[in-house]
Amino acid sequence: MNDRVVLAYSGGLDTSVAIPFLAEKMGADVLAVAVDVGQGGEDMEVIRRRAVDCGAVESIVVDAREEFAAGYCVPALQANALYMDRYPLLSALSRPLIVKHLVAAAREFGGTHVSHGCTGKGNDQVRFEAGLAALAPELQVIAPARDHAWTRDKAIAFAEEKGLPIDVTKKSPYSIDQNIWGRAIETGFLEDIWNGPSEEVYAYTSDPARSREPDEVVIAFDRGVPVALDGRALTPFEIIAELNDRAGKHGVGRIDLVEDRLVGIKSREIYEAPGAIALITAHMELENVTVERDLARFKRGVDQRWTELVYDGLWFSPLRRALDAFIAEAQRHVTGEVRMFLHGGRAVVTGRRSEASLYDFGLATYDTGDTFDQSSAKGFVELWSLPSKIAAARDTRR
Amino acid sequence: MNDRVVLAYSGGLDTSVAIPFLAEKMGADVLAVAVDVGQGGEDMEVIRRRAVDCGAVESIVVDAREEFAAGYCVPALQANALYMDRYPLLSALSRPLIVKHLVAAAREFGGTHVSHGCTGKGNDQVRFEAGLAALAPELQVIAPARDHAWTRDKAIAFAEEKGLPIDVTKKSPYSIDQNIWGRAIETGFLEDIWNGPSEEVYAYTSDPARSREPDEVVIAFDRGVPVALDGRALTPFEIIAELNDRAGKHGVGRIDLVEDRLVGIKSREIYEAPGAIALITAHMELENVTVERDLARFKRGVDQRWTELVYDGLWFSPLRRALDAFIAEAQRHVTGEVRMFLHGGRAVVTGRRSEASLYDFGLATYDTGDTFDQSSAKGFVELWSLPSKIAAARDTRR
Amino acid sequence: MNDRVVLAYSGGLDTSVAIPFLAEKMGADVLAVAVDVGQGGEDMEVIRRRAVDCGAVESIVVDAREEFAAGYCVPALQANALYMDRYPLLSALSRPLIVKHLVAAAREFGGTHVSHGCTGKGNDQVRFEAGLAALAPELQVIAPARDHAWTRDKAIAFAEEKGLPIDVTKKSPYSIDQNIWGRAIETGFLEDIWNGPSEEVYAYTSDPARSREPDEVVIAFDRGVPVALDGRALTPFEIIAELNDRAGKHGVGRIDLVEDRLVGIKSREIYEAPGAIALITAHMELENVTVERDLARFKRGVDQRWTELVYDGLWFSPLRRALDAFIAEAQRHVTGEVRMFLHGGRAVVTGRRSEASLYDFGLATYDTGDTFDQSSAKGFVELWSLPSKIAAARDTRR
Amino acid sequence: MNDRVVLAYSGGLDTSVAIPFLAEKMGADVLAVAVDVGQGGEDMEVIRRRAVDCGAVESIVVDAREEFAAGYCVPALQANALYMDRYPLLSALSRPLIVKHLVAAAREFGGTHVSHGCTGKGNDQVRFEAGLAALAPELQVIAPARDHAWTRDKAIAFAEEKGLPIDVTKKSPYSIDQNIWGRAIETGFLEDIWNGPSEEVYAYTSDPARSREPDEVVIAFDRGVPVALDGRALTPFEIIAELNDRAGKHGVGRIDLVEDRLVGIKSREIYEAPGAIALITAHMELENVTVERDLARFKRGVDQRWTELVYDGLWFSPLRRALDAFIAEAQRHVTGEVRMFLHGGRAVVTGRRSEASLYDFGLATYDTGDTFDQSSAKGFVELWSLPSKIAAARDTRR
Repeated sequence: MNDRVVLAYSGGLDTSVAIPFLAEKMGADVLAVAVDVGQGGEDMEVIRRRAVDCGAVESIVVDAREEFAAGYCVPALQANALYMDRYPLLSALSRPLIVKHLVAAAREFGGTHVSHGCTGKGNDQVRFEAGLAALAPELQVIAPARDHAWTRDKAIAFAEEKGLPIDVTKKSPYSIDQNIWGRAIETGFLEDIWNGPSEEVYAYTSDPARSREPDEVVIAFDRGVPVALDGRALTPFEIIAELNDRAGKHGVGRIDLVEDRLVGIKSREIYEAPGAIALITAHMELENVTVERDLARFKRGVDQRWTELVYDGLWFSPLRRALDAFIAEAQRHVTGEVRMFLHGGRAVVTGRRSEASLYDFGLATYDTGDTFDQSSAKGFVELWSLPSKIAAARDTRR
Repeated sequence: MNDRVVLAYSGGLDTSVAIPFLAEKMGADVLAVAVDVGQGGEDMEVIRRRAVDCGAVESIVVDAREEFAAGYCVPALQANALYMDRYPLLSALSRPLIVKHLVAAAREFGGTHVSHGCTGKGNDQVRFEAGLAALAPELQVIAPARDHAWTRDKAIAFAEEKGLPIDVTKKSPYSIDQNIWGRAIETGFLEDIWNGPSEEVYAYTSDPARSREPDEVVIAFDRGVPVALDGRALTPFEIIAELNDRAGKHGVGRIDLVEDRLVGIKSREIYEAPGAIALITAHMELENVTVERDLARFKRGVDQRWTELVYDGLWFSPLRRALDAFIAEAQRHVTGEVRMFLHGGRAVVTGRRSEASLYDFGLATYDTGDTFDQSSAKGFVELWSLPSKIAAARDTRR
Repeated sequence: MNDRVVLAYSGGLDTSVAIPFLAEKMGADVLAVAVDVGQGGEDMEVIRRRAVDCGAVESIVVDAREEFAAGYCVPALQANALYMDRYPLLSALSRPLIVKHLVAAAREFGGTHVSHGCTGKGNDQVRFEAGLAALAPELQVIAPARDHAWTRDKAIAFAEEKGLPIDVTKKSPYSIDQNIWGRAIETGFLEDIWNGPSEEVYAYTSDPARSREPDEVVIAFDRGVPVALDGRALTPFEIIAELNDRAGKHGVGRIDLVEDRLVGIKSREIYEAPGAIALITAHMELENVTVERDLARFKRGVDQRWTELVYDGLWFSPLRRALDAFIAEAQRHVTGEVRMFLHGGRAVVTGRRSEASLYDFGLATYDTGDTFDQSSAKGFVELWSLPSKIAAARDTRR
Repeated sequence: MNDRVVLAYSGGLDTSVAIPFLAEKMGADVLAVAVDVGQGGEDMEVIRRRAVDCGAVESIVVDAREEFAAGYCVPALQANALYMDRYPLLSALSRPLIVKHLVAAAREFGGTHVSHGCTGKGNDQVRFEAGLAALAPELQVIAPARDHAWTRDKAIAFAEEKGLPIDVTKKSPYSIDQNIWGRAIETGFLEDIWNGPSEEVYAYTSDPARSREPDEVVIAFDRGVPVALDGRALTPFEIIAELNDRAGKHGVGRIDLVEDRLVGIKSREIYEAPGAIALITAHMELENVTVERDLARFKRGVDQRWTELVYDGLWFSPLRRALDAFIAEAQRHVTGEVRMFLHGGRAVVTGRRSEASLYDFGLATYDTGDTFDQSSAKGFVELWSLPSKIAAARDTRR
């Protein structure tokens, strides 16, 4: 019996070319799996049929939009996940979900191998293969772009030779990955890190400098999960999608940074993530109101570790589960509403309210109604500063 | 001989009233020390004379602007110090410097006591008194506002009774602290955390929504110290001042958050710090280019601890010195230029260049000239994911 | 109606004297609550009656031994809780449990106040009062030793004057706190930190230098909870008690350190905790076998924070609950057996076995049966060391 | 011209066989470099000549004993470096030093390649090659054992075939690495982790159960560097050597653990490190006396990261240098003496004294002379516990 290769299929040049290549090179049956994580763009059914036209023996589409939003984006939101304080992890979040569906397809269709289109210098190969090692170590991995040194030119030549139904001339100069949590852009001229991005690299966001009426939105959270916009109950996916639209109109969430890849190099990355950035901004401020100080301070380190771990491809690791348990407990009271102003590239919190608030007007006010007992302060300061005081006396003495 | 009280003098109502109060209550000589940390506003000589008019036996002004910028703001910049990821520590930075000059004055003029105007529910009392405990434990501290329960009304009545040269009617509803690193605003209507700030609370920044030509600036750093703007060599103070002006015009650096005070309560704070925010943004990106990944990841935790420690009033602590040593070593190669765009409330990095860059075009590019050996990746991924893989196999087995 | 004071009663001089003192000073009814946390020594009923004889209107004993072991010692074990890498937190663990029972008694008997015998320079006052602030902020706290400056001499004089049924002459020179998790000793001659402890300060442990047949024990854990010794299923309390006896006979678990107290001073402390040290040693090694590397590395920081938090009196804090959630997840597979050798002051692990082991003989062995694919290593090493390599090349260049 | 291979030469079977193998396989000149890091055993000159007899064109011995002790062991001591709280990093410390001397030899003798005898499943290959990537990326690495799949049997057959001057029959069943900081032992029967080690695996330590007079030693430190024993000024190397002898006689420093290797597997390791364990124990206690609390708490995380980094082969990384800067500052006052008792497998601190002590008898004592102001405590406790109190009130309310 033939080997059966389950291919993570995007509909683009590289994975389309992989279908006849794998069939020919390995004498294998290729099963294409396209996962809808809210990337938009082409109709998923068109993509599905293209795989068949390229020679896939099976071609399926998995609608994982709500699953992705609820099970991957929301945990990232609860961890305020911004790698290097900037990048909201969009590709890093979708890969483990895609792996999960590849494995399910392999088990349904008797797959013996799994294939992806990643190169050997990016992070996504690690995310795919670390996920596969955890979920289905028995499946062998083939990465044509990496293991057979495919280049764009080689792919185009192969596509033309095989007469594949792909318009290679339309191929953009950009390397793009996108889903509901955001969009990543790489391209040649940005590899010079002194060059700024031009307006046409963006698709999720409009120019923030363009004049436009401000938008105001009230986001409601329940235990760290976004549950409503402006009083309308919505699913996480719907909330992210609506905020991508509304915050995107105001140019919110453009990111441009030099990033430390797991494979050991620095790379230049452009992202746009209007919904993610608006939500994380709101969530952080609601945590400021509802999470106790010591917990909040420690959670920053937990959030950073969670973010690095997921960036580094280790979604399916025992450490993530333990960090998630910490974060879930920390979200217990992150319930309430945040009012935000969207305008000119900025998503700014202007109000917050919560039944679970730890902000106590009586303790905070300097006006009538002050309930804070200032006489405690003197003793507090004395003991708080005692170790420094003793050390300073020692330093003076020596 | 009379007790001699060295008073941290701001020129405002509270500390002006303190002069006759301390003189009368304690039968003490009061020595007023006003420290110029770039707060702007009134002429320092006017302030100096006001203390004399209120009854001070000595009144001095210390010009600590360059010292403050170089010795306090720059270390905060190198630590990317944003308390709760937002607040650039402006008051927390000036207090230890003021303490240092109070102690110097006390030693020069034979001071026996030190006095400050802080209340018992804020952070600044801790910063003053922890600093004094370290530098001059022999000096006694008097805090009239806290220890004698002074209120605004009581202060006004006392000022009128004594005929002090203060126009109490002009007193604004805002409680303000400002210096070259930024400006902090508290006021009654913002104690309702659902209320947004109104435009008139701001002084360092213009409305970001107002239309205006964008500004572009190139900031040069040498080992983490800002040294030039647009090619002009400047001192740190001059750089911060110019960026306050230029970034402030575009509304950069407005901050509104619910903050965890050291004394255990949450409070609502408004800040504006155009220069600080522009500089920290630029510095973080230059670190992205020049600091190695593992160092950068660990430094985030060091930066957070530095920030909390300084926020918590422990500037004069052994831990700060050790964190500073770490940070100094990490800044060794943070040299280069960052180009920034200032507009509409945003300070956005658009370019970076450095002789010390770790960004390697040859390793990063996907075009001709790629020097990255992709064949290493497969082995890397296998061992990188091995612990997760073994754990997943165990989890499945059980 | 009289105030009703619920007193944490130990049966010793200080809290016995507190009964008539509180009754007289405040005109209050005193309710004595003695909590059995496995401290051994006097019969609890004798202690209960002594309180009545001293004038308590109610006197109760709470048998909290199993609750203490399962709900306080076991979580500490799972956190490998050793403050400053040495001290197993014994007093810090019992205080929150005692607080819980004081509050229960106050609610049952209509208590208006709570009283404890701690001084103002130790940690235990903080643990009591932080617990009370969390569980019953409505109860007022009275701490005679601290707030009324009681000294030993004053207490003895008062006891004699009132004719209290306490033999003050037998009072030892040691200040002791003990429970099932260990025993703490402070005494005058050890306040000179150059002096070593003498043999008579110890009660839970024999001299490790005394010759004696070694003991071997197999400890079984289920999800981080000790469940059996040498194959006999036992409760946590029984296991700790038996190990106190068996490991104590061999002098295991003596600790002598200079310790950083929460109140800002360093103090000299002697502890003995044979059961705790044996269990923590065994538990750490079982974690080595069953916990994945990244999780184990991060857990060290979680364990340290848990330990400091509990030491610092913040048992009833949101952060502890979140750390507990992390730890509980990390314990999921900490199941198996550890064989230990007890002799000459040492508790040494000599074997470990577990169904949940991540140790894989095939991957580890250098003999026949080796399944590790060494060809992965070269690629791994190349990418693992790439950031250092790029940085070193930069450093050389500059 | 022939390739010139600089070989890290130990004198044992594997690296002896590598000499003719490399010469034959590559047609290369082999230069043997043996580095003396205090491993003892055979005379270094005997080892040097053996390499020549095996066919090396150059063979040198580097006496790096003092350099190793001062530049590698002392930094580890200052970091209290115990990987997984147990393993004092002995092999991990020597590899970067050996790399440094290999590179120096390569530069002196025109080496084009470097070779080591490590396998592909251990940590040491990473330590060698990461060091080489940093110091001399131009040198190519050859690892016969890993890259050419050498096994013991293959090596013995080759040695016999070539008539190499090695007595292969004497080869022990143990795989050993040793230096002045300790000794590591792996062997087949210990790969079953339920088996305990037998007495004959040990060479640096005697059976702790054997009866013997206790030894007492006073170790003096200056800024974290050990400088004297019992009042005799000695070099770090001499101190470690003497303590290996004295503590080793009492069986101090035996370690048996399941360890997480960098390459992703768990392995069983036996170590003995009498001097290292005695010194780390003494150093930790001197830190307890001389290092301020907040600094000590943060340093634990720094120490852990330093240890993991060095274990993971990244000695030549920017992060180590920054951690070293932190640690150096933290050692500024770690000066004083520790008295230790060596007996029955235990190295126990019984006294400490220091001019730089932060222990303040007046603040710590409960006797006459107490200078601690207990009235500060009440205010301290109130504010210290305020966040928990507010959170508990919120939790009750909801």
